[in-house]
Amino acid sequence: MVIKLYIDLMSQPSRALYILLKYAKCDFEKKLVDLRQGAHYSDEFAAINRFQKVPVIDHDGFILTESVAIIKYLSRENLIPESLYPRDSKLQARVDEFLEWQHIGLRLHCAMFFRVKVLDPTITGVAPNAKTLSGYENRMISALETFENHWLQKGTKFIAGDNITVADLLAACELEQPRAAGYDPADSFEGMSSWWKAVQEYFSPYYNEAHVIIKKVAEKNKLAAKL
Amino acid sequence: MVIKLYIDLMSQPSRALYILLKYAKCDFEKKLVDLRQGAHYSDEFAAINRFQKVPVIDHDGFILTESVAIIKYLSRENLIPESLYPRDSKLQARVDEFLEWQHIGLRLHCAMFFRVKVLDPTITGVAPNAKTLSGYENRMISALETFENHWLQKGTKFIAGDNITVADLLAACELEQPRAAGYDPADSFEGMSSWWKAVQEYFSPYYNEAHVIIKKVAEKNKLAAKL
Repeated sequence: MVIKLYIDLMSQPSRALYILLKYAKCDFEKKLVDLRQGAHYSDEFAAINRFQKVPVIDHDGFILTESVAIIKYLSRENLIPESLYPRDSKLQARVDEFLEWQHIGLRLHCAMFFRVKVLDPTITGVAPNAKTLSGYENRMISALETFENHWLQKGTKFIAGDNITVADLLAACELEQPRAAGYDPADSFEGMSSWWKAVQEYFSPYYNEAHVIIKKVAEKNKLAAKL
Repeated sequence: MVIKLYIDLMSQPSRALYILLKYAKCDFEKKLVDLRQGAHYSDEFAAINRFQKVPVIDHDGFILTESVAIIKYLSRENLIPESLYPRDSKLQARVDEFLEWQHIGLRLHCAMFFRVKVLDPTITGVAPNAKTLSGYENRMISALETFENHWLQKGTKFIAGDNITVADLLAACELEQPRAAGYDPADSFEGMSSWWKAVQEYFSPYYNEAHVIIKKVAEKNKLAAKL
């Protein structure tokens, strides 16, 4: 049964799932949903995901949304390596702890900064209000500080212990959004910088492959800012 | 091994875990952390949870935060009924799908409305700005609409299918926050109203027991609004 994976590589959990399935040598069919063209608003896609968001999987007719729920399902179906999502109850709990924390603890703030600084201005043609943007940036920096101090600098090599897991992959993909928006977390946070490199290397060459498009967006934004 | 459960019954995931453990007849020790007295900022509590938040469990020295991660751990340790968190891969995926969606889809908006309308004014003595409050209220109503249309009115009796699960318990406890802040979702959403009653009955008498304090806060706020 081939899995259909509906993604847009501009979306961070889409990239994480794409990298995960590539790394796991899982047989899957990539279905691109071009968010910038509004493809997620089509009736065809709404029939697949009533929330009109990516990523989504279709596993022989079983349609599932929410990246974290998808990762856990793939693990139960033995489609990803156990090391990346351990079966041991306590080890799995440490991964889950981060996966649940990151929604509001990290993802919300990184995604909102990207949206206010890059996405909304691209769509509307209107530059963001400086005070508003600064508020979003400060909340994101505060989230990054918590991530650095309480998850990366707590004495283990990776987020959920000394072994790399899906928690690291999800977080690494998330941090690419502020980087693409002109704020590189690796410049300000030492722990993040070395940990991030280790995650990229582990998932090489798929990590870089999944980030080609967002890196192009980042370059374009940098050039535009210089004009 | 007795579980220590650190909670404040003003916190919605605290109430959900308390009800779940009571319903499961699980042997646990309730450890109250009085958020209104700032007990979560004590060094003693910071040593238990570096994030200084409730709920937390201590299971024979294994300390775990994040309510959803805790529920999954309790399930793996056979401490809660399988029916409430199914082991079947696809059934569990449907529960997980909601548990992951609710963080930003529902919880964020209900919690922020409660905070801006009730919590912050109680602490600062300053009434909320009407425009700001209205913005939070509108975003919450929009989240409630999505919850009603895409989770409750999609043809199943409960959130993740025709059987009640932890997804329903978590959502029901969440909705008590806007209700306590003077916006009762049951007044505006038909599906929510009947579903909510069913959840309360299922977890009776623990549901009501866990909501005594927040109901008192709601009454006090109602009286204060009339003065």
